[in-house]
Amino acid sequence: MKLATISVGGRPTPAVALGSGRFVDLSREGGLPSTLLGLVRGWDAHRGAVERLVAAGTAEIGPEGVRVLAPIPRPERNIMCVGKNYYDHAHEFHGSGFDSSGGAQAVPEVPVIFTKAPSAVIGPGEPIPAWRDPTGTLDYEVELAVVIGRGGSGISKADAYGHVFGYTILNDATARALQRKHQQWFLGKSIDGFCPMGPAIVTADEIPDVAAMRVSTRVNGELRQDARVADLIFDIPTLIETISALVTLEPGDIIATGTPAGVGLGFDPPKYLKPGDVVTLEITGLGTLENPVGGRPA
Amino acid sequence: MKLATISVGGRPTPAVALGSGRFVDLSREGGLPSTLLGLVRGWDAHRGAVERLVAAGTAEIGPEGVRVLAPIPRPERNIMCVGKNYYDHAHEFHGSGFDSSGGAQAVPEVPVIFTKAPSAVIGPGEPIPAWRDPTGTLDYEVELAVVIGRGGSGISKADAYGHVFGYTILNDATARALQRKHQQWFLGKSIDGFCPMGPAIVTADEIPDVAAMRVSTRVNGELRQDARVADLIFDIPTLIETISALVTLEPGDIIATGTPAGVGLGFDPPKYLKPGDVVTLEITGLGTLENPVGGRPA
Repeated sequence: MKLATISVGGRPTPAVALGSGRFVDLSREGGLPSTLLGLVRGWDAHRGAVERLVAAGTAEIGPEGVRVLAPIPRPERNIMCVGKNYYDHAHEFHGSGFDSSGGAQAVPEVPVIFTKAPSAVIGPGEPIPAWRDPTGTLDYEVELAVVIGRGGSGISKADAYGHVFGYTILNDATARALQRKHQQWFLGKSIDGFCPMGPAIVTADEIPDVAAMRVSTRVNGELRQDARVADLIFDIPTLIETISALVTLEPGDIIATGTPAGVGLGFDPPKYLKPGDVVTLEITGLGTLENPVGGRPA
Repeated sequence: MKLATISVGGRPTPAVALGSGRFVDLSREGGLPSTLLGLVRGWDAHRGAVERLVAAGTAEIGPEGVRVLAPIPRPERNIMCVGKNYYDHAHEFHGSGFDSSGGAQAVPEVPVIFTKAPSAVIGPGEPIPAWRDPTGTLDYEVELAVVIGRGGSGISKADAYGHVFGYTILNDATARALQRKHQQWFLGKSIDGFCPMGPAIVTADEIPDVAAMRVSTRVNGELRQDARVADLIFDIPTLIETISALVTLEPGDIIATGTPAGVGLGFDPPKYLKPGDVVTLEITGLGTLENPVGGRPA
């Protein structure tokens, strides 16, 4: 199932995405949570009602009057992100002079985890505010994001997929010069609007083979990133085991799994994003996340 | 005013701390928010009612039957922390071999910001679970924590103190070997229970001279850290200006301003914390935050 948060008449509501801009408005069913995060938390209890509402066909809306928001517009803590988690990107980034993380080797021996502020999240189609980066070094990073369903501590690799609710696309937008200058990456990656997410959370049962998913980025139609999830240095079970050994995972937690080679920084000279550019991320089975790059409002 | 979150009969409630274990239970007043975070958000509207309740003397409780919790037991996003923000500690840490942040200089040119997971927060007296750190390198860091009252973006240094609600004590407990190994500091600093906080939020009007505050740590009574807030490399207005230029600050945000020299890592050999130790942090005007170090539960 593809679950989204949509705005209907300015009111955010959870919905099932049917394709072609059509949705099942889950606010039509009295007993369901009023947010997608609430639905993720109570999925076992509510799944039946959602499926019945979809089958009934009585609550369909769109495409007119519907705007798609980020599936979880405001996560309840920072998004956990993995740095340097594809071999080719690890080398690309390490050789760029922008790697302030201090590792002597390009490929880390354990996952490198930092966070993005939840206030940075924006939805599909919303402009990424390049003007908020005073250094003019806005870059894109397509990432497969894992949404945790069942929380837990000390989760083993073998059990990890049982804790995954679903997947979405995340653009780990970054002000490269700030990422370098501030050493720790939080600020350069947490600027307001620097975390496009969506268009939907696709439940794990719809993704039979995670490793076979392809992640890609096009900027103004030009292919920049293109890799398979199989190329991750630390796969999803390893990430869940590593994090949950230390930090108890919670329903609705988002783990962005890292980005492959082809970011703007990797070109000589770097191809940073500028107002008017259009960034289109695509991941097999998850759809497309497209955002224009915005200039300073008049 | 000293505002706390206390547990009365197992129920968390906001309170005014009167000293000597006495509190004014703010849940006795119908119109007030049910959490201290809610009170911080609505302080301008609620301050009068709080002051009247204190003056009336009708809602006093304790010390029997009262337990002090962290003032904000669950922040709504990660705690923002500043690394290497006292000169002597910057040199101590840089020379230790544990600084994975990659700067060639000990003293950073701009604030180094990372985050701690809000799930790590514990209150006064709660044991710090050393057993959750498999590397056995648990260290203490006393920090003056700023609690934001009025949110905002692009806050200037001149206006910064107008956005500060108050101050509390925070122990940025750290698994040093994990901090180093994972390069980015989030994991080594976000282990469940690795963020003692409290005992109260002291409103800004009670602190006439922030720079004059003394921050100190004792371990089993032995003085380990002892510095003045005046020794910060980046002062509070600079931190607020730097962060809010990029990330809009929100009421209830917590900024931990960094720790001075004298952490366990700085000794040769390092003096890491072990089960049975007692860590006592003190900051002028804010009281004392004491936590035992806990071993694995039987």
